Amino acid sequence: MPQNVVIVGAVALGPKAACRFKRLEPESRVIMVDRANLISYGGCGIPYFISGDVSTADELRSTSFHMLRDEKFFRDTKDIDVMTNTEAISIDREKKTVLVQSTLDRKKQELSYDKLVLGTGSRPRCLPIPGSQLQGVFSVTDLNKAIAIKTEVAEGKVGKAVIIGAGAIGLEIAESLADLWGIETHVVEIMDQVLPGIVSPNMARMVQHHMEENDISFYLGEKVERFEGETRIEKVVTDKRILDADMVIMAVGVTPNSDLAEKAGLNVSPRGGIVVTKRLETSDPNIYAGGDCVEIISLITGKPGYWPLGSLANRQGRVIGTNLAGGNAEFEGAVGSFVIKLFDISVASAGLSIESAKKEGFSAISAFVVQFDRAHFYPKKDLMYLELVVEEGTGRVLGIQGLGNTGYGVVGRINAVAPMLKHKIVTEDISNLELAYAPPFSAAMDILNAVANTAENILAGKNRVIEPDTFAEWWEKRDSSNRFFLDCREWGNAEPFVGKYPEHWKSLPQGELRARFAEVPKDKDLVLICNTGIRSYEAQITLAQMGRIDTYNLQGGMAAVKKWGLDLLE
Amino acid sequence: MPQNVVIVGAVALGPKAACRFKRLEPESRVIMVDRANLISYGGCGIPYFISGDVSTADELRSTSFHMLRDEKFFRDTKDIDVMTNTEAISIDREKKTVLVQSTLDRKKQELSYDKLVLGTGSRPRCLPIPGSQLQGVFSVTDLNKAIAIKTEVAEGKVGKAVIIGAGAIGLEIAESLADLWGIETHVVEIMDQVLPGIVSPNMARMVQHHMEENDISFYLGEKVERFEGETRIEKVVTDKRILDADMVIMAVGVTPNSDLAEKAGLNVSPRGGIVVTKRLETSDPNIYAGGDCVEIISLITGKPGYWPLGSLANRQGRVIGTNLAGGNAEFEGAVGSFVIKLFDISVASAGLSIESAKKEGFSAISAFVVQFDRAHFYPKKDLMYLELVVEEGTGRVLGIQGLGNTGYGVVGRINAVAPMLKHKIVTEDISNLELAYAPPFSAAMDILNAVANTAENILAGKNRVIEPDTFAEWWEKRDSSNRFFLDCREWGNAEPFVGKYPEHWKSLPQGELRARFAEVPKDKDLVLICNTGIRSYEAQITLAQMGRIDTYNLQGGMAAVKKWGLDLLE
Repeated sequence: MPQNVVIVGAVALGPKAACRFKRLEPESRVIMVDRANLISYGGCGIPYFISGDVSTADELRSTSFHMLRDEKFFRDTKDIDVMTNTEAISIDREKKTVLVQSTLDRKKQELSYDKLVLGTGSRPRCLPIPGSQLQGVFSVTDLNKAIAIKTEVAEGKVGKAVIIGAGAIGLEIAESLADLWGIETHVVEIMDQVLPGIVSPNMARMVQHHMEENDISFYLGEKVERFEGETRIEKVVTDKRILDADMVIMAVGVTPNSDLAEKAGLNVSPRGGIVVTKRLETSDPNIYAGGDCVEIISLITGKPGYWPLGSLANRQGRVIGTNLAGGNAEFEGAVGSFVIKLFDISVASAGLSIESAKKEGFSAISAFVVQFDRAHFYPKKDLMYLELVVEEGTGRVLGIQGLGNTGYGVVGRINAVAPMLKHKIVTEDISNLELAYAPPFSAAMDILNAVANTAENILAGKNRVIEPDTFAEWWEKRDSSNRFFLDCREWGNAEPFVGKYPEHWKSLPQGELRARFAEVPKDKDLVLICNTGIRSYEAQITLAQMGRIDTYNLQGGMAAVKKWGLDLLE
Repeated sequence: MPQNVVIVGAVALGPKAACRFKRLEPESRVIMVDRANLISYGGCGIPYFISGDVSTADELRSTSFHMLRDEKFFRDTKDIDVMTNTEAISIDREKKTVLVQSTLDRKKQELSYDKLVLGTGSRPRCLPIPGSQLQGVFSVTDLNKAIAIKTEVAEGKVGKAVIIGAGAIGLEIAESLADLWGIETHVVEIMDQVLPGIVSPNMARMVQHHMEENDISFYLGEKVERFEGETRIEKVVTDKRILDADMVIMAVGVTPNSDLAEKAGLNVSPRGGIVVTKRLETSDPNIYAGGDCVEIISLITGKPGYWPLGSLANRQGRVIGTNLAGGNAEFEGAVGSFVIKLFDISVASAGLSIESAKKEGFSAISAFVVQFDRAHFYPKKDLMYLELVVEEGTGRVLGIQGLGNTGYGVVGRINAVAPMLKHKIVTEDISNLELAYAPPFSAAMDILNAVANTAENILAGKNRVIEPDTFAEWWEKRDSSNRFFLDCREWGNAEPFVGKYPEHWKSLPQGELRARFAEVPKDKDLVLICNTGIRSYEAQITLAQMGRIDTYNLQGGMAAVKKWGLDLLE
């Protein structure tokens, strides 16, 4: 029997649920309401719109075949009614009606439903910073706000910008402003790393270093105290400095927009997300919810998590569409897959970073490998940096993060692991992971296999490692410590370091270690160095065989240290 | 207690097993023997060496840190002894010795072992074609043969070449000869498609068309009868034609090199592969085997399969190395992941193609989707072509194949699915697959999700499809059939077709279908057309709602037809 379906919110989840449902039940009626005038756009494209890579906002609102997804489009091609500029005020679950109000003429109206879908999305977290009402202080709520930002930028109003928050959106916007518009861009972040909670401090530092090389300034561990200006923003005052600014963009995260659900008495979590089943039903079986307004289950920890992402919203929308039509589709949760492109590098992750893993109570280690992303003899190749987070004892893989210049190469490795994380895979599953192999795409023993092998060796106590941050600290303290740096590469690589730091640095190529063992400095802790951490690992084994276990292998070698931003030859 | 390990074969599996074992048991002794003079090289790099992309053979023999992997390298850096130019003649399993003989001075010697490893590799399949002994007729057995081929090519001896076999190696070599050396290159294949057994006929045709555009000629379904020439090859005679040739390269597959194992009474399969356990033990627990000389289990069918690939050999080598040291590593099998780059396109696959699935007794369908590999509003993007093979009834995913210009994008999608295939996943697992999302890498509803959604719709009977080959056939017979071609795109796209074929082709944009339903030709089977198959699917649903179920949706739309090589406007 044909149904009446009302959908609140028409950006990502709503349209997907509506279209899927209508394809399954063409006779049923669907009304979508949205308080904004612009609907069904690619919100994740906003940074590219601000940068100018995407030239008009309409491109974010169009289909791949260049039709604008407006009210007429939904009516003609999908047989779906859309009410824009219309806010949902309240739900009467007994009567099964939604009270809506026009944001233009304030007229109210009741819509009755058989099934209701909430796709109310998220709203930007607002910090109570004095001066937030000044002109030029923005948060990126929606496409209209993005249009306003771009208008000011394009009018030349902005010479200096301050971004608050070094999460994904903050960094993307920072690139947008600096790269194409040449705006002097500063990023203030209260945590002590960029992309907090997503990648490890070491990898975060590599990202930061790359962005600094592209003229973005970072102030980490700093708190914004107030914004100053007459009518327009002029200065950002942190607890450590004052930054001039013609524009401020707040990008400190988003929270679920669940007021309507809460007012209707639906089950909402303490963190504000609407609680849904795997079928994406709320606590009222006639009401579905999905997208940025709901919490879903972390497939790593089994606890509720929050991932406001257009991709998840789309897939959830399809699940809801199927279930509206009497189907039995499920959305089981997420591992939190992530990718971002920042200037020339791309960073991707799935599951837990080492810090997040520890915070969740896991006893975990992380293996870090630097290797070419293709066969090393193949002419076109790039170094890739991959980190695997593994639980001690069980060897369970908790997460993976990667970074490199070949974005699709990085994200491809992450995507190969992400779908398996929910199966509680262990390192051996990735050691033997069957990636498609040809020299233009991978090494015979791919970096992904290698990072799992490395994790296994660390867990077995055979590879005793330090990361670039520890190396930097130890290097800083080299005069006051009992550590010595043993370069296991061939002489050509080691020479400039030995020449500059003869008291701390010695060349002893790994292949000559046995023959020249007498030359290994005694009574010193040895930091073993090579280009990527492979030869130094071999050296560590040989030294252990000769009785020297006071050695530390620098994971990722000098390649990692350089990417991290430390240049010993400068 | 230190052990004596002897390893026969030192190309891929052998060195990996040796090095892994020595890192775990440095006190044990390892001897590798190989009948060739060159060892431990990247055999998969041979086509790139022939093309000139890799300029010297030594590059294929070097580590990523530019050390040549010769006997000295293994002795100095790995503490492993290598005997090159040394053939293993026989194994005495009672005495635990291997009889070896120098290929130079014919001297024999017995090597005793505690554990023996067989990494004897494969040999090229030889067709009994008269004239095979002529100069200039090659098969690509090993690096020495590749050097001989390249020498002749570089000396300008080759103006015309014929490749026998259109499998992966044949196609790679064809590109090598044609692209950089400008050799007129012809490929003869006995089957009626390129890459037989790997991709579907439709996708194979797209590959062929792309290579034809790059001046390679194909003769499919043709059998080579003889080679003619005085001392050197001059002509290749097939059952259909005579081709001039200065060089012939036979690339008709390889078979396991298991003579030594068979002679020693080890269990060898009817197809010639050494039979091994998951621990990679042969029927003699003191003898391990891996790489191209063994059969492994297909994780799709559960039957033995044969995948001679350097990547599998390397991973198996590590498993053997671990087990030699008393570990308990396993190699469970393979799904047959595959990727190849051919000129500007890359083709990747995992699991079964539609033809292979049917041959294995599955009742299967294939869903085919064409979509941008990135968000459609992102400026840099490419069309990707993805095919999912699914079992009817269960919805089990049996295989996936992809093709596109962005190689890493294609292989990334395949690699995201391949590791899951062994878990007997169904379409819903891929519909909801959590790929890392950002506009430079994927669409919010990625092509991978989309192809699973499409498969689901086909299985549900909602999307009734035809492929490009059927379209081509129906188009060919358009005058004598009762079919009509309904173009569901906007007028601008449809106009040239309507203009050229007014009696067969009609424009009726999908969004106007309801209003203009009266214009839909009656009493005709309708072939629904759009650019990629999405709008035509919407049209199919609308038409079904209006009572018209005599419709066929062209999967992949005109984009697929064009890629397939049919240009209706030519």
